[in-house]
Amino acid sequence: MKEFINPSREMYDQLVRRPTISAREMRNTISTVFKEIELKGDEAVKSFTSAYDSVDLEKIQVGKEVLERAYAQMDKSLIQAIRTAKENIYSFHEAQYPTDINIEINKGIQLLQRSVPIERIGIYIPGGTAPLLSTILMLAIPARIAGCKEIVLCSPPTYKGSIHPSILATAHICGIQEVYAVGGAQAIAAMAIGTETIRKVMKVFGPGNQFVTAAKEYAIDYGVAMDLPAGPSELLVFADETSVPAFIAADLLSQAEHGVDSQVVLITTSNDIAIQVKNEVYDQVERLPRKSIATEALKNSFSVVIDSPEEAFYFINQYAPEHLIIASEQPSSYIDKIQNAGSVFLGNYCPESAGDYASGTNHTLPTSGWAKAYNGVNIDSYMKKITFQHINKEGLELIGNAITLMAREEQLEAHARAVDIRLNTKI
Amino acid sequence: MKEFINPSREMYDQLVRRPTISAREMRNTISTVFKEIELKGDEAVKSFTSAYDSVDLEKIQVGKEVLERAYAQMDKSLIQAIRTAKENIYSFHEAQYPTDINIEINKGIQLLQRSVPIERIGIYIPGGTAPLLSTILMLAIPARIAGCKEIVLCSPPTYKGSIHPSILATAHICGIQEVYAVGGAQAIAAMAIGTETIRKVMKVFGPGNQFVTAAKEYAIDYGVAMDLPAGPSELLVFADETSVPAFIAADLLSQAEHGVDSQVVLITTSNDIAIQVKNEVYDQVERLPRKSIATEALKNSFSVVIDSPEEAFYFINQYAPEHLIIASEQPSSYIDKIQNAGSVFLGNYCPESAGDYASGTNHTLPTSGWAKAYNGVNIDSYMKKITFQHINKEGLELIGNAITLMAREEQLEAHARAVDIRLNTKI
Repeated sequence: MKEFINPSREMYDQLVRRPTISAREMRNTISTVFKEIELKGDEAVKSFTSAYDSVDLEKIQVGKEVLERAYAQMDKSLIQAIRTAKENIYSFHEAQYPTDINIEINKGIQLLQRSVPIERIGIYIPGGTAPLLSTILMLAIPARIAGCKEIVLCSPPTYKGSIHPSILATAHICGIQEVYAVGGAQAIAAMAIGTETIRKVMKVFGPGNQFVTAAKEYAIDYGVAMDLPAGPSELLVFADETSVPAFIAADLLSQAEHGVDSQVVLITTSNDIAIQVKNEVYDQVERLPRKSIATEALKNSFSVVIDSPEEAFYFINQYAPEHLIIASEQPSSYIDKIQNAGSVFLGNYCPESAGDYASGTNHTLPTSGWAKAYNGVNIDSYMKKITFQHINKEGLELIGNAITLMAREEQLEAHARAVDIRLNTKI
Repeated sequence: MKEFINPSREMYDQLVRRPTISAREMRNTISTVFKEIELKGDEAVKSFTSAYDSVDLEKIQVGKEVLERAYAQMDKSLIQAIRTAKENIYSFHEAQYPTDINIEINKGIQLLQRSVPIERIGIYIPGGTAPLLSTILMLAIPARIAGCKEIVLCSPPTYKGSIHPSILATAHICGIQEVYAVGGAQAIAAMAIGTETIRKVMKVFGPGNQFVTAAKEYAIDYGVAMDLPAGPSELLVFADETSVPAFIAADLLSQAEHGVDSQVVLITTSNDIAIQVKNEVYDQVERLPRKSIATEALKNSFSVVIDSPEEAFYFINQYAPEHLIIASEQPSSYIDKIQNAGSVFLGNYCPESAGDYASGTNHTLPTSGWAKAYNGVNIDSYMKKITFQHINKEGLELIGNAITLMAREEQLEAHARAVDIRLNTKI
């Protein structure tokens, strides 16, 4: 971890910059996958699975009985943990359910805004030995609350030739019935285009490697939306003199263990804290099973001492972190200074892992500075707001002149005439 | 306009398909523009403006006095029309202002969701002889309500060597102070990258030609978000036997006059209505100033008679129109059938042009079937929702076990330890 003490604002630009990841180099590979699936459907899905995952699938879809069996065999205390998390995630996302709007803006002009669920969505869950079951909760629970009729889950058959049983069991707990043993870019392509087995979805959600990410971007050409632009996960901790260095070090490491490209940053008003955190980090990392990954990630990471809290938050808002911990006994006083962040953790007893799993907030969040313009996944991600207007003749008479004047200024005469014909015709 | 009578569902796929526009072919041109502006800043902006718009700019920024003069010289009745529109747009978008959420999900676990404006946004308004002043209202008013601190407007100097005075006057009415006489891909690149004069924005809004559209997509690599994926404008009218054919024809033509690539569609339960509308269209189009454009657009257009309203709305939801008019004396009965549409116009006295200009709804809407997953621009487009959590030791004790069990199942030991260290340390 590099250290900076009261760097100049000119330095900030350099410090807040993340490594750029461009999906462009992968476009050729991705385009081949999409073309093959467009042409050959399920056959192509199977052949990519054979080539990339070394699994020869008989059936792409995972049967209901397989989901039920995985659930029956899951450790009961883990099920209880999932249920606790599910309950909190459900409550917080249900509280986000949007209210419809219905106002009479002028006499005879009624305007409505109504939230309608996206009908069919796809969730991608990566494979490997560690099953990302928390991500299923984060992506499926708000979809259920929003009222999405059809929820599809794709995950590669990379655990002993099938999907990891914990993923299947969690999918079952979330009420997902359509599960396909397909991974990588071919999963995204199949959901975006549609095959004999997997029907086209309208939006894809979920994390993945660079191929999955590139495929999600590519899917836009097939009219399929996606959750968020992707980037490596990151954590910024702001610490004042009331923070606890050992806790902060544990948080920084919990982010650093995600991957070698993770970035962790400490911003503190206290040089003492900076030194203590650093010592704690190098002490705690020694005992971690993912020590080598965390150590690699720490190389991208740094700490900055900034004397003034105002200036510290100027930096933080420029950085726009995915996760922001306010390590302080009095965190509330900092809330109003936060302009750009994905999810914020307040106080000395609020580790990022609480929000990663069980407190109720979503963990699918904007990385790489996208928090300046994007929020994380929430109930809105699964709905679209349709506007309606009901105008009667009286209403049209009120605004008709405004419409026709503006339309004619824009040289759109037919727009004006659509008003005139209504006001000048006796029916 | 082609006609179809009760086509089979197999036909629907073909009928709902829009021409695909891929920005890929333009990527080379766009990439040159971005690289030049990254390298040379203002100098490159000026040289592109000279090359593409044949204007040699002295200054890129339009002075405050120029905006004020344009406003002073604007026709007073047009100002009044703009003010009427502004008031309605303001009221409807203000009603959309999101409510913050603050709940105690468990004892000691407080969750918040707070909406925060995007600090700096850019609006692009195309040039040419017809000034799109309504689009300024649609994009600037919700930005003001959201509380965006800085609103930038770019428009090319293609009206006698400067921006059309109606655009300047409307910008002034909307309180926009930063106006730049730059158009095309170079405007988007300048806002996305930042130059000596134009500081980088966080999100770009607004319509434009294929270069502008491609540049907006390209800007994502510079960490800049955009409003919506773009496509040609479109209108679908659903008409039952209580509709008025002459009004429908006027609406279809108001869409058709936008551009040769516009698409208009009539879906009706009545063959009589289909025939009458068609006759009216060919009669009314003759007297339009933009007859040639509208006639060209009508070639992409079609009518479908579908006897059953249920089946008609199945088709409509598959099509997912940008604009949907329910031409009927009793439109309310159809509302619940609408799943996918950008903006809906109800009744025989509700032309699309009402929503284009003055009723209060936004006219920046999802085209090309994107209404299945996206909504139009609304107040949310200018804000992001940040989640906060405040957990004390008691709260962490409640969910600690759930977190550590799930983290360990995901093989993320450091995530679990960030909890353990807090629960096992006496401070």
